[in-house]
This record gives sequence, structure tokens and C-alpha cells, in this order.
Amino acid sequence: MRLATIRTATGHRAVRVDDTTAVETGDADVRALLERPDWAAHAAAAAGPSHDVAGLDYAPLVPSPEKIVCVGLNYRDHVLEMGNELPEYPTLFAKYAPSLVGAHDEIVLPEASEKVDWEAELTVVIGTPVRHADREQARAAIAGYTVLNDVSVRDFQRRSSQFLQGKTFEHSTPLGPWLVTPDELPGGGPEAGWAISTTLDGETMQESTTAELVFGAVDLVVYLSAIVTLNPGDVIATGTPGGVGHARTPPRYLTDGAELVTSVAGVGELRNTCRREKR
Amino acid sequence: MRLATIRTATGHRAVRVDDTTAVETGDADVRALLERPDWAAHAAAAAGPSHDVAGLDYAPLVPSPEKIVCVGLNYRDHVLEMGNELPEYPTLFAKYAPSLVGAHDEIVLPEASEKVDWEAELTVVIGTPVRHADREQARAAIAGYTVLNDVSVRDFQRRSSQFLQGKTFEHSTPLGPWLVTPDELPGGGPEAGWAISTTLDGETMQESTTAELVFGAVDLVVYLSAIVTLNPGDVIATGTPGGVGHARTPPRYLTDGAELVTSVAGVGELRNTCRREKR
Repeated sequence: MRLATIRTATGHRAVRVDDTTAVETGDADVRALLERPDWAAHAAAAAGPSHDVAGLDYAPLVPSPEKIVCVGLNYRDHVLEMGNELPEYPTLFAKYAPSLVGAHDEIVLPEASEKVDWEAELTVVIGTPVRHADREQARAAIAGYTVLNDVSVRDFQRRSSQFLQGKTFEHSTPLGPWLVTPDELPGGGPEAGWAISTTLDGETMQESTTAELVFGAVDLVVYLSAIVTLNPGDVIATGTPGGVGHARTPPRYLTDGAELVTSVAGVGELRNTCRREKR
Repeated sequence: MRLATIRTATGHRAVRVDDTTAVETGDADVRALLERPDWAAHAAAAAGPSHDVAGLDYAPLVPSPEKIVCVGLNYRDHVLEMGNELPEYPTLFAKYAPSLVGAHDEIVLPEASEKVDWEAELTVVIGTPVRHADREQARAAIAGYTVLNDVSVRDFQRRSSQFLQGKTFEHSTPLGPWLVTPDELPGGGPEAGWAISTTLDGETMQESTTAELVFGAVDLVVYLSAIVTLNPGDVIATGTPGGVGHARTPPRYLTDGAELVTSVAGVGELRNTCRREKR
């Protein structure tokens, strides 16, 4: 099953996305849907107003998550190629909700920086409140998977020791287009090795598989839930493989009009045009 | 004017706190109140059900902020005494909403750590949406000030380069008891030098004044709003002075039953008992 949040003339709606039509579930967005204890049965049975899939206007999959958790240094191939040791603990940081945009929205390049970079990330969406989860509970708490590009303003990211300010620029971070439930994905989880990539104006920039994750989806839910309750609609962006722009020689960054395509095979694809902020 | 979020038998309520009584404003909490464009006039005119101030059960001032922004390394005396240079840019990181507790609630010490520390912080509460603010707009966007203790789990804070995981443990961070509007505070802003302190079981641990802030309240709103829209109910914890436990010789940490009092003169006082997590 695929679930999305779309924009309609009368506001956001959660939908179940079938082959050619999307059917409203009666919820304001995917977070509200996932807050139903019976969300899977409810969404499967939904028979609300329907929309042609070809014409959908995707909002951020979860427009206002309680938590956006991002993971750094989490692709084995990338960590090792940089000469680093595999980390003992995940590196975790946050974004705020106004940084999110929809799967086909423009990414805003801030006036204040010329160093905006891409980071394709497989992303976990939580479907059940969970605290101190064991591995089985963690697996059961995962509603499904989606795609995020952790667009990063590198000069702001490095203004202090803490990444946050480079990671949370307004309208920088596409999330979507939909959540895919694990039963529809090969192997049921990213350890099966799903292809992940970024292309910039058609040129491949990042290309790896989720089999390279140091901390997998279940590991991260176990780890985070030992710290704080994870709630329905929370998103965990699991980190990015090698191939980001600032590590290239010479460095490459996003420019006005650039077309960024972020893909996780079987999960989904983001297609976003970059636009320089106008004031 | 002082505003708070209290717990009642039928849920959270925003109240105006007068000398001996607190009057409901008709809003579910302080964030919902501040989302009214006319929040100040609305709260001043409120005449809903009233409560005896002595018996109030304070919820976190804003139970679910869109953003909790924390600032590191922001007290001049502390930065210089540590032999560091004053920073050019603020160090910014986040907490998530489930870390918050009320002004008189227990602070939960996680089972997983013996290194839980205190950080008294003057905290700004946003009252108007603001983006790319100049100094005048930034000052006008500040609804008022409150108190937060940025309780920090030091071993988790240092597990990676990013502080988040040590800063967002469940039920660790008291926020409140109320918001005080700037017109009721000496000098109208923290540059006037408000006394800030932490005591642990009656012994003074931190003692400074907000005149030592490197980046003041207005500076921080200007800086943050250049990155992302600040919205009503957002909180900005402005950093802590010297005297934290892990920098002491020998280090001191919070223990089961410890009484932590966090105070900003004229703004408010948090009184919290620490309790070891039971599972």
C-alpha cells in the first residue's frame, strides 16, 4: 500500500495511492492517518473522493512531523572510502518542519549561500508510538519507507560544531512522494539492498544501495526509542551515500534551475527544480 | 502580563496568571493563544473560568512547539573563562517536544546514564510569524520570556559530534512556569542584565546575568529568521552560563531525589525533583 498527503482546493488530504487513482482516507494528512491505531485497515478500506494519480499535487509526505531525525555518517562504503572507522553510535541531528517541501516542489536556494548540496536518503516513517523498543517492536513500529533529500547549506552547516543551521533552511528538503508499506518492498527492509541515487541535470551524482547502511532502520528505531518516544508521523532520514557535491574536485553545488532527482528503487522518486530565493 | 499552560481535569488550558487567580483564555495552550494575531488583547480581556494561583498544575509552557531551538556557548564570561574566543556565529541545536516537562514536574533521569547535568537558560517565546526580520521586527516578534533547564545527558551528548541525542531524553527539560511579556521586565530585554541561577539541593551551582549573553534575544531572532520562519509558540533557549556539573572538579551530576531550582530574576522559577527512570 502507498500513502500520500496531497494538496486539494480545500486543503491537505491523506490518500491511498493505487495504480491510476488516489482515494481520500478522510484524514487531513498522513500523520493524522497514522495516528489512528487501525491506520492500515482504515487506509486499505478507504473509499472517499478519488483523484487521478497523474494530476496529484504532493505536499510533504508528513507536513508537520513531531520529529524529523537525520542520521549522519551511515553508509559503510562512504565511511570507509573517507578513511574513517565505522561509528559505534549513530550521529543524530534534527530539521524543523518548515524546511520540508513536496516531491515535485521547487527547492529554495537561500540568497545567503552559494554552497547548497544534495544528500539522497532512505527515510523511515513511524506508524505506532514506541519507547524502549526491542527489535521486534521496532520493526512493527515502522509504517513504511519514503525518500528525502537532506539538502544541506554547507557553509552554514560548518559555521559551528552543530549541523542544524545548515540543515533546516526554509523549503529546502523534499519528502515523499509517498510512504510504501514494508510488505510491498523487496525483502521487507533496506538490508535487502535497495538502489539509492541522486542525479543532477541527468548526471548521476550518488549511487549506492541501502545494504551499505551501518545502522539499519530497525537499529535506529531501537536506538532512538531508548531516548524518546517515537510517534506516528515521525520521520527518520537514514543518511546518505558518497557522491555529495562538496566532496567533489572541484566541488559542485546546486544552482538556479538545476533539476534534482532523488530515487530509492521500489520506494519512490523526488523530482525537484532548484530556484534561487527572491526577496 | 503572565501567560501559562495548565493541566485541568478536562485537559490543558491557556491562562492569564494574575496575582492570586489565573483566568482561562479559551485556548488549549499558550501556542494556540499566541497563534491568534490579537493574542495580547485577547489574553488581557480574558474572563473565562478562574483558578487559584497557589493550586496551579503547570504543563510545559508550550507543550508542543514547532521548534525548540537551543543555543550553545553563549555566555561571554563562561566562553572567556574557558579560554575560548567569542564565537562569530551562534551554535544551534534542537530538542523534540516529548523532552519537555512542566515547571514543577519530576525530571526523569534515564536508566542508561549516570551523567545527567543542568543548564539554566533564559528562553525566548515567539508571538508572531517572522522571516528575514530586521531588529525592530525581531523585537516585535518576541511574545515574552520564560525559563528552561537544558538538562543534558553528557555521555550521550558526546557519543557523536552532534549534541541532539544527549539533549532530548524523554521528560528531561522543564519549561515555564509562565511567559512574562517584555513590558513587565526591567529594561524590556535581557541586555538589562537579569540574574540567572541554578541551585542543587539548595547549593548555588550557576550564577550569572543575562547581560553576559554573546547573542542576545533580538540577535537570535534576526539570525534564525534568516534561515527559517519562526512561528508562534517557538522557543529559543539562549544558552547557559558557567557552573555546570561536568565542568566541576570532581564532576557533579543529578541523582535520584535531587532538587533542582532554576531561576531568572523577574521571569520565573522552575522547581523540579529528579527521579531515576523505573521500567
